[in-house]
Amino acid sequence: MASTILSDCSSSSAARILPFHMIRSTNALRFRCSVFLHPKTPNPRQIHGKSLAFTPVAMTTETSAKVIDGKSIAKQIRDEITSEISRMKDEIGIVPGLAVILVGTRKDSQTYVRNKKKACEAVGITSHEVNLQEDCTEEEVIKYISGFNNDPSVHGILVQLPLPRHMNEQNILNAVNIEKDVDGFHPLNIGRLAMQGREPLFVPCTPKGCIELLHRSGIDIKGKRAVVIGRSNIVGMPAALLLQRQNATITIVHSSTKNPEEIIRQADIVISATGVANLVRGSWIKPGAVVIDVGINPVDDPESPRGYRLVGDVCYEEVAKIASAVTPVPGGVGPMTIAMLLSNTLESAKRLHNFK
Amino acid sequence: MASTILSDCSSSSAARILPFHMIRSTNALRFRCSVFLHPKTPNPRQIHGKSLAFTPVAMTTETSAKVIDGKSIAKQIRDEITSEISRMKDEIGIVPGLAVILVGTRKDSQTYVRNKKKACEAVGITSHEVNLQEDCTEEEVIKYISGFNNDPSVHGILVQLPLPRHMNEQNILNAVNIEKDVDGFHPLNIGRLAMQGREPLFVPCTPKGCIELLHRSGIDIKGKRAVVIGRSNIVGMPAALLLQRQNATITIVHSSTKNPEEIIRQADIVISATGVANLVRGSWIKPGAVVIDVGINPVDDPESPRGYRLVGDVCYEEVAKIASAVTPVPGGVGPMTIAMLLSNTLESAKRLHNFK
Repeated sequence: MASTILSDCSSSSAARILPFHMIRSTNALRFRCSVFLHPKTPNPRQIHGKSLAFTPVAMTTETSAKVIDGKSIAKQIRDEITSEISRMKDEIGIVPGLAVILVGTRKDSQTYVRNKKKACEAVGITSHEVNLQEDCTEEEVIKYISGFNNDPSVHGILVQLPLPRHMNEQNILNAVNIEKDVDGFHPLNIGRLAMQGREPLFVPCTPKGCIELLHRSGIDIKGKRAVVIGRSNIVGMPAALLLQRQNATITIVHSSTKNPEEIIRQADIVISATGVANLVRGSWIKPGAVVIDVGINPVDDPESPRGYRLVGDVCYEEVAKIASAVTPVPGGVGPMTIAMLLSNTLESAKRLHNFK
Repeated sequence: MASTILSDCSSSSAARILPFHMIRSTNALRFRCSVFLHPKTPNPRQIHGKSLAFTPVAMTTETSAKVIDGKSIAKQIRDEITSEISRMKDEIGIVPGLAVILVGTRKDSQTYVRNKKKACEAVGITSHEVNLQEDCTEEEVIKYISGFNNDPSVHGILVQLPLPRHMNEQNILNAVNIEKDVDGFHPLNIGRLAMQGREPLFVPCTPKGCIELLHRSGIDIKGKRAVVIGRSNIVGMPAALLLQRQNATITIVHSSTKNPEEIIRQADIVISATGVANLVRGSWIKPGAVVIDVGINPVDDPESPRGYRLVGDVCYEEVAKIASAVTPVPGGVGPMTIAMLLSNTLESAKRLHNFK
């Protein structure tokens, strides 16, 4: 059944509130974009304080894009991992292990760590958890990292970010043995990712998840124009490097880019990782392009029990009418990140035990 | 005096031969493009075997671009280095040292090594040279590298490439202590170059030279559209990363790029590093763009005493009429590469001896 839905992504007015609904039709997930932003959300007409020109978009009622169902693809990957771990245990008696270090009591970090632990258990990875006080020293964190570096039952080490302000993130991340750096954030990994003829030991989880979504949705990358919006160390930059390794022609759009929408409109593949709710409008997208939305942004929603809901960087309703395929938020890239963490941990255990 | 010159960069016919002249006028260097390619030069209508559409260009007689004089800028930099080295020697009694390892008897490599040695002597850097037989082992090369790694009078180590085929280049380059990797090719350096908030110990010499040419010619990079043609580990990729660090919006064009000329035509800054003679046509350039030509390509020239001459990737005559600034070949990027090697060696000595 095709549903007629309202579309509104013009989000400058905080006075307007529209409810959020997710309507599952026979062939697509459909969303209404809210226009009431969470107080912490930057003005979506700006990238990092830079004004952007908005083009009004005509409202239509048809959604044409294929929805890339990250939840279902991630489940498929987790099932494959479960079966590989079982084979590994049977053949060589080894169970992959992931150590997670959490410093402090941030609620969101606690939730992420809990979710990672649950996901590990579900696929058969042993998780090792360390919770440290907010006011502990850098040396204490590094002491635990060293312990895990030397522990043969640990194949991946993850330090939950952000760290408390008194700590030097770089010192701490650099302490992780590169052979157990399942986050793939070590500069040596990023360097190998950037270079032809070199192979990184690990690819950062979120960009790896984006590429996996493209692959498993049968989307060719070679020779395509790809635009990555955002140039962070953990998503934008490695995503661009990965697309380039797959022979896309990449452009990285960022806070200093003039007329980003003109550049984005040339792309066959768009990956957005800005953290700005509803930034990418339908009018910015070339008809038929594929859009991967990495953003998970809270916007106020009085109708939600939590008082807010999560939306992407992409104005989904508008873009779904223009793109050939698009990831929803939630349920797109999000579930892939943890699946790729599990995949990296398994890969590490296989490599460290020379298991094919 | 303004000279009227012939322009011909359409270079598919090996049967046509035009002489090459360099004519110095009061305000610009002017070139005639030869159309007779050196047998080793790939077809300039292709990038790595891929056909490209060529647009005929109307001939005009005016050259409007400022010529970026790499020779003179490199001299200025060498003078600055000479004076810094002299200050260092006076204040702490240290003289920077560069070790160069040459394996085999390739004529071009011998010339490069000789030129580097001469350049070192001219600025006051002590050069240490090792010449090894073509058939020596990888272990022998690595033994010399280890010796230089441990020698406090050596601040930079350079292995002249290409190495003989029986050697693993990666193993050899990885043996160079990252604190003496003045070539900047180590993946850890490239990773740091790619990442925000990280600083590479060294930036590869040729791309560093390109950016220095822009800086010293007063060309703003921030917010500009920049296209890098070619994605090699030693020029294209690090050049793109450097431009991005300077807040340009970068696109990397390569052998799998469709319609490269359309993308290049959007650029405010073009850096070409393909090794294909006369590839970049005037019609590919946006009026007023800045064009940096990294290519040094031999083309047959019966009128030259050597039987060939060197041209860039860029069809200079055409581009000089469209661009606002352009580097000539020779005399553009070339002299900058050695100047940057000297600069990296000085920088290394300063860092290792904590000299400000």
